Amino acid sequence: MKTENSRNEYSRRISREDVSPAVIKRLPRYFRYLRELLRNDILRISSGELSKLMHVTASQIRQDLNCFGGFGQQGYGYNVKYLYGKISDILGVTQNYNAIIIGAGNLGSALASSPIFEKRGVRLTALFDVNPEIVGRNISGYTVQPMDTLENYISENTVNIAVLTMPKEVVRETAERLAVLGVNGIWNFASTEIELPEQNVVVQNVHMGDSLMTLCYELAKRSEESRE
Amino acid sequence: MKTENSRNEYSRRISREDVSPAVIKRLPRYFRYLRELLRNDILRISSGELSKLMHVTASQIRQDLNCFGGFGQQGYGYNVKYLYGKISDILGVTQNYNAIIIGAGNLGSALASSPIFEKRGVRLTALFDVNPEIVGRNISGYTVQPMDTLENYISENTVNIAVLTMPKEVVRETAERLAVLGVNGIWNFASTEIELPEQNVVVQNVHMGDSLMTLCYELAKRSEESRE
Repeated sequence: MKTENSRNEYSRRISREDVSPAVIKRLPRYFRYLRELLRNDILRISSGELSKLMHVTASQIRQDLNCFGGFGQQGYGYNVKYLYGKISDILGVTQNYNAIIIGAGNLGSALASSPIFEKRGVRLTALFDVNPEIVGRNISGYTVQPMDTLENYISENTVNIAVLTMPKEVVRETAERLAVLGVNGIWNFASTEIELPEQNVVVQNVHMGDSLMTLCYELAKRSEESRE
Repeated sequence: MKTENSRNEYSRRISREDVSPAVIKRLPRYFRYLRELLRNDILRISSGELSKLMHVTASQIRQDLNCFGGFGQQGYGYNVKYLYGKISDILGVTQNYNAIIIGAGNLGSALASSPIFEKRGVRLTALFDVNPEIVGRNISGYTVQPMDTLENYISENTVNIAVLTMPKEVVRETAERLAVLGVNGIWNFASTEIELPEQNVVVQNVHMGDSLMTLCYELAKRSEESRE
């Protein structure tokens, strides 16, 4: 590794500004595939091999990843570990963000007990709910806290991301309450789009139903084709 | 409505082939916004107004939606109900597909109790699980059935879509088992990509973590910018 690290492309610092939004959009998928390769002890991969695995053209892969470097010696393909590290870094995985979940129902519980945060370098620190029947329950090692302690909790703990899995009727007021408290990342599962540009809050609205519609479309298209 | 229906653009049958894949990808979002407009009794909207609402340029909207027609009289904007109907039709919402959920844990329960299926014209008919402690439970009105009754259930009921919320280790074999039974739509939440091209199965792999990464990226980018 020492020889490789001394190479020019290995020492270059990549800024987030260097990567186009279109590439950024595709990086989480590369992240997943590279992670899987590492888990299977595959340390080198050519763009051709990665192309077959990911069903993306090799030229697309080269276009997407070449700014990250990590080629090592000519003809030996990408250095998987290096590339994974660079992509993790660009995507903010190495920032060690802290997250809380608000809404400890089925979806909140599912997220709390999944490895979804840990895999991406995010630390889940607490769960909150308004329902007195849910408050105090243990979910995957977290004791669900009452919503009226939110202000207090955030004043004493760093919270970068709030995951909102509550009913959509209350999601906007909760997001605004969080913005006031200085939480500027919202991962919104409440099936309504919210935006808080004035409060300088970053929001990702999750619409799981969109992929169900794409599935229905593909099924309808296929049966249409088979009728032709 | 009679006058409008007799107009040329209203009588045209749109085939799925007429709509480009890029537009198809954006249609679920239009579907959501048009649905919300209808719920608020807004029956006409100009591309300019829709543009403001959706943060998409008006020319993009016109480009995306003009093949669906629905303009009514010149200058009166889109007929929301008509457009919603056309988009629903193209997306397969009007196909009345039946779905089952396999894996009645937290995520499966969250999906079963959400309006996600009903909103998109999909009828959830049954839940299955391998865990004897979960089998027999009532989740949102569905009695969880044991996995060994799957073959029997599918032979007696039409199942178009299977929603997989089980651990990723067993997702591939389950998908293959479903393909043999003639279920050719898979909505896969098991955080691993599966494909079954030979079995003619349509798969949508859901990666909720990807949007968490995008959120982390946006947060990291913002703090980088504020340091500059």
